[in-house]
Amino acid sequence: MDTENPAFALEREPFTPAEVAGFSGGALAADIRGHGDDRLDLAILLSERPCTAAGTFTRNRMAAAPVRICRDLLNSGVAPRGILVNSGNANACTGARGMKDAMAMQAAAAQAFGLRREEVWVCSTGRIGEPLPMDRICTGIQRLATAVGSTAAFGEAAADAILTSDTCRKVASVTVPLSAGPVRISGMAKGAGMIEPNMATMLAFLTTDAVVEQGLLQSSLGAVVEESFNAITVDGDESTNDTVLLLASGASGVECRSGTEDEMRFREALRRVCRELAARIVGDGERITKVVEILIQEAANDAEARAVARAIGNSLLVKTSWYGNDPNWGRIMDALGYSGARLGEETVTLGYAPAGEGEEVPVFTRGHCHIENKPQWQRMVAEPRFRIVLRLGQGEGTARLLATDLSEGYVDFNKSE
Amino acid sequence: MDTENPAFALEREPFTPAEVAGFSGGALAADIRGHGDDRLDLAILLSERPCTAAGTFTRNRMAAAPVRICRDLLNSGVAPRGILVNSGNANACTGARGMKDAMAMQAAAAQAFGLRREEVWVCSTGRIGEPLPMDRICTGIQRLATAVGSTAAFGEAAADAILTSDTCRKVASVTVPLSAGPVRISGMAKGAGMIEPNMATMLAFLTTDAVVEQGLLQSSLGAVVEESFNAITVDGDESTNDTVLLLASGASGVECRSGTEDEMRFREALRRVCRELAARIVGDGERITKVVEILIQEAANDAEARAVARAIGNSLLVKTSWYGNDPNWGRIMDALGYSGARLGEETVTLGYAPAGEGEEVPVFTRGHCHIENKPQWQRMVAEPRFRIVLRLGQGEGTARLLATDLSEGYVDFNKSE
Repeated sequence: MDTENPAFALEREPFTPAEVAGFSGGALAADIRGHGDDRLDLAILLSERPCTAAGTFTRNRMAAAPVRICRDLLNSGVAPRGILVNSGNANACTGARGMKDAMAMQAAAAQAFGLRREEVWVCSTGRIGEPLPMDRICTGIQRLATAVGSTAAFGEAAADAILTSDTCRKVASVTVPLSAGPVRISGMAKGAGMIEPNMATMLAFLTTDAVVEQGLLQSSLGAVVEESFNAITVDGDESTNDTVLLLASGASGVECRSGTEDEMRFREALRRVCRELAARIVGDGERITKVVEILIQEAANDAEARAVARAIGNSLLVKTSWYGNDPNWGRIMDALGYSGARLGEETVTLGYAPAGEGEEVPVFTRGHCHIENKPQWQRMVAEPRFRIVLRLGQGEGTARLLATDLSEGYVDFNKSE
Repeated sequence: MDTENPAFALEREPFTPAEVAGFSGGALAADIRGHGDDRLDLAILLSERPCTAAGTFTRNRMAAAPVRICRDLLNSGVAPRGILVNSGNANACTGARGMKDAMAMQAAAAQAFGLRREEVWVCSTGRIGEPLPMDRICTGIQRLATAVGSTAAFGEAAADAILTSDTCRKVASVTVPLSAGPVRISGMAKGAGMIEPNMATMLAFLTTDAVVEQGLLQSSLGAVVEESFNAITVDGDESTNDTVLLLASGASGVECRSGTEDEMRFREALRRVCRELAARIVGDGERITKVVEILIQEAANDAEARAVARAIGNSLLVKTSWYGNDPNWGRIMDALGYSGARLGEETVTLGYAPAGEGEEVPVFTRGHCHIENKPQWQRMVAEPRFRIVLRLGQGEGTARLLATDLSEGYVDFNKSE
């Protein structure tokens, strides 16, 4: 989908945290789920030197303990040296004990890796409402410290260790030619269900070896997250643990200065990596069969455009019709109507289009249905990727959302854990 | 569920519009879907004299042509003599032609029944985005006029003719002892999918033979709708055609005056009929296996309590876990957290309770999970009816919502029409 900037060749595989200068990392199986298997579930990302950090987090009011810790660390300006992540348990809705456990994770990792407690940031993902198995986590951290020291090439396991219901690894990297030399940006993410990000998505960890001051790093990340991780939905359930962290090691010695063309290039590269990771999360949505790009134009403002896109992308009736290859545009119009956005039947137009650059076919134009085009809609909607374009005729507001269908498989998959 | 007021014995069957003095009606198969079958799909409700009317309507901005007509008629103070309803086609998103067709329906019925056009109110329900088959509708109206004149006891068919994906008729009646004598309130409703009413639900038609002035009738209906039709959800999709109409014929000669005990009695009886009809809509939700009563207490205000109840009742992950008999309370807490309501993990309590008057079992109390109660939750959640009670510890706000689970059958049923 992202072909507009051939200068940045997006690399999707292979990926190791170590490929960005100044970073290393790894993962192992700590049996956090208690199943006694060897599934990777504990990962560390390390930096040789203190990093500049940026982050965005869930706005869910039941935010997990590790989210609250990272948020506080970011606000207090602490320079991180490492991120410790576990899957299999979200450490959410765990009260005072959860906060104590998250801090104990920090302390154990700090001791094992020779850092200060506040230099180790922690993230968790998995089941909500159960206490962390601290004994197995602490044992895992000890083993991780030994392994990271002795094995150079095991970093790629980290991207696997953060997965839960995902079926595949989600990584992306890019080399950005700045004026003083090239820098790298790499990212890994996880997420397949409970996906309706708001200020951030599930988990995504991004690294760069560029030298970037904190204000610029945060504003770049904030802008980019809006149109990547915050522009996707699988099931409309915003998680308690959404976290995106971006660490800049500065190891390349190449500086990205505010207000320069380098800033635009850096942001564009970061945007490409984040959009790629976000697209992978949607594409790996739980038991989905389709990814639909929803484009809203001519809304009264961007906020209303986003509300329309969300209403459509989260409508059960729209999602099930997509699953059934049914071009049931009436359900799209219904969702549009209850989105809260200002609009009228007499100003709205709707079209279907194939994924990519294919031509849009009109469906509904200001009160008139182009029923003669139905065979074309039917063909498009039967594809695994397509696009719907809605123009509201109200103003300049736009939005783009990647959404999925809803299958019987999703219900079956989530009916029990 | 409604046992609190034994003075009003709620009657669920049989039901005919004619049982309320001054009303008659009927229905027949007009083949609106074009399937050539004999499914009832065109109904008329008639009053011997001009009625006082009250109504509430969808707030969907793509409101169907008949909704806009009824809304205008209500605002202009016209006294209706009849309501003509078709199922099988919503006459929504049909532009200028849809409005012309709806007015032609009015005109045809007015001529057939000897009324003025504005005395015939029209409602439609069914597929969105297709023009009405006006030839078959007009033929149907002619036949209806002949039939209503010749058959006294065919009124009960009307409650069947308004159904779409419903599996059963939804009716309720009550006799209310006012100070000057008894009056009747009767209602019929339809709805099973696209159920997330906002100011009204799918279709419900209520009649009474009481003498009630319009302001009192409208305020009574408005109050009652909030806690009945506006307090249910099946799939979170607010329809383009939601309409509730209440007609008072005055045929009993018994007046219900504002500010009297009669007003309270009348409103209570109306409330019981509407809650019964709303409960039947939820209970007939498309391919559901459970109805869950969500009680929110101690919210900062009622609006936030309602937002919490909706977030939980419409969460795909919560609904699928109910379907799987999984007491996955973490998903409830997640939905609570993104509802937008003010709250904190340290003030929230959650309990499960059996339907009816059974005792609540604590699940989560201000950061602590009562895991020892898990066997009891599991038993409750496996039942077809149960209740969840959430106290937010913020204030006096409350809400009650009836919600359903989400099954593979719902997806299968809605994947194509």
